[in-house]
Amino acid sequence: MTIRTDSISTEDGLARARDLVRPALRDALQRLDTATREVCGYHLGFWDADGTPRAGAGKGVRPALAILSARAAGSDAAVGVPAAVACELVHNFSLLHDDIMDRDTERRHRRTAWALYGESRAILAGDALQSLASELLAEAPSPTSAWAVRCLNAATRRLIAGQAADLAFETRDDVSLDECLAMAAAKTGALMACSASLGAVLADAPSELAMGLTDYGTHIGLAFQLVDDLLGIWGTPERTGKPVLSDLRSRKKSVPVVAAFDAGGPAAEALRSLYALDREMTAAELIEAAELVTDAGGRAWTEKAADRELAAALECLEPLDMPPDVREQFVVLARQLSGRDE
Amino acid sequence: MTIRTDSISTEDGLARARDLVRPALRDALQRLDTATREVCGYHLGFWDADGTPRAGAGKGVRPALAILSARAAGSDAAVGVPAAVACELVHNFSLLHDDIMDRDTERRHRRTAWALYGESRAILAGDALQSLASELLAEAPSPTSAWAVRCLNAATRRLIAGQAADLAFETRDDVSLDECLAMAAAKTGALMACSASLGAVLADAPSELAMGLTDYGTHIGLAFQLVDDLLGIWGTPERTGKPVLSDLRSRKKSVPVVAAFDAGGPAAEALRSLYALDREMTAAELIEAAELVTDAGGRAWTEKAADRELAAALECLEPLDMPPDVREQFVVLARQLSGRDE
Repeated sequence: MTIRTDSISTEDGLARARDLVRPALRDALQRLDTATREVCGYHLGFWDADGTPRAGAGKGVRPALAILSARAAGSDAAVGVPAAVACELVHNFSLLHDDIMDRDTERRHRRTAWALYGESRAILAGDALQSLASELLAEAPSPTSAWAVRCLNAATRRLIAGQAADLAFETRDDVSLDECLAMAAAKTGALMACSASLGAVLADAPSELAMGLTDYGTHIGLAFQLVDDLLGIWGTPERTGKPVLSDLRSRKKSVPVVAAFDAGGPAAEALRSLYALDREMTAAELIEAAELVTDAGGRAWTEKAADRELAAALECLEPLDMPPDVREQFVVLARQLSGRDE
Repeated sequence: MTIRTDSISTEDGLARARDLVRPALRDALQRLDTATREVCGYHLGFWDADGTPRAGAGKGVRPALAILSARAAGSDAAVGVPAAVACELVHNFSLLHDDIMDRDTERRHRRTAWALYGESRAILAGDALQSLASELLAEAPSPTSAWAVRCLNAATRRLIAGQAADLAFETRDDVSLDECLAMAAAKTGALMACSASLGAVLADAPSELAMGLTDYGTHIGLAFQLVDDLLGIWGTPERTGKPVLSDLRSRKKSVPVVAAFDAGGPAAEALRSLYALDREMTAAELIEAAELVTDAGGRAWTEKAADRELAAALECLEPLDMPPDVREQFVVLARQLSGRDE
């Protein structure tokens, strides 16, 4: 099956979804108390710390998927909006709390919420977004809204399990590649799978469609995480919003690194020695570590795995019955998320 | 209207609710990843840090209210169980996160979860309980489960607003009594109001009943918080699980203190001076501060306010149509929560 993507601008699809979702997100924030709203709106990029208005942050991949999934079921995009808003809220709740746990002080080229407002207010802001997500989704005018709430919170539970595994990896030096992939599937794949199907759930779609889109979302979520792991080593600060080689600097057990460890051999051993240092790596050592990941085959393995996940995602779409333009946009999003849009 | 309470043992009512809810809570934990489940089960008192099994912690007031509210609507207690579990999960999510924000190292005579497992795992454990609450409630076999999810999360939003206000009070010396009461109504009243009505919502009760029980719950929630504030100054460590005079030690702007400030006069001024000290209060100063709260009328004001809330709660029950034994148990619980059960 050949899919033409040259006529479709992904940016347009994402921008259309953002146009639908951002006003709903802004409205949702109005329900919060002033103090918590301040932190949430800052984090979501609706204003700066001094109150200067901004357009909003984030590419809005999850909202775009949720809206497409409602359209896949033959419904209006509007039917998917509560799902899109809920997924974006859960995603941002997890970012707010992850930044605290990881002690990250920058995100999207701005200070993180906890660094600016303190930990307590950032914890509460995350709690508030998590709660708003279920509140708004439960209000969706659909006979399946309770089922949608169940799906969203089951995905949240898996996302939490993924973050718990990620935390545990920090103090272990025997993380297997399988564990690493399972962690990524949970931490990133679960909410992506939910986003790619939740609009269809609200549209009361046949279960084959909702399940097929869930599988598609799992694969693109994993592909996205693999590409993100590659960018964490080889991405530019402009693209990632983080310092160069940041994942190596923090000795993260990301997939390319664990794949390198797993391959064994002299490069893997040298990389293990650098990861075992009881001091920070020097700039030269960081560059060497990146080269060792490549030499041990960790980079190539991860690139191939991402390609495999992209292919699997596209395969999931094939048997599904949906309007052709919706299918094309799912394809374009999958290619973009797996770094294959250039 | 006279209600006989001498024949009813509150402990029996609470114990019956616990017997229904604890197995469901234990089952719910099985859905979590091992690492997160460990923290949640410790916090809920199902095991100690070394794995030794325990019966579970907490009196289970909210579950008892939720189950009663299903019975008020003429349904079986079982109908209220998902509501009871969800409210208990939200209550415990808030305790887990509040302990981090307040840097409290002891709760229920045991170390708090963050003190034992670290902040990151305690944040995740709270997130997991919040998510489980909506997941389980959404699964309730009731046509009104989505509405119940909406009610629960709206209450959670108010609870968060209350905690945000409480945090903000720490750095303000101009907190008014009205603000203080509004904070207590949000932080404690909102979830208590939800608990007292959520079983009725699941039972698809007439809106007068659900709304009346919500009002009842708001009043007993406030009464409970007022009594809790009194215990925070005059309670024994055995009863509160906290050191004596702990709220004064941390210079909490609890209702008795703010009522004392509000009354003005020499005792209030002396109390303000103690609260403004730039060092910890000595044991003698703590005792003096407690006496000054009494002298300024803060203790009597709070006791009267708690009595007023209890009376208002009982008044809310009067017009509501429900089985007599259920009504009696609501009365007994109200009296117990407002410290009038002796």
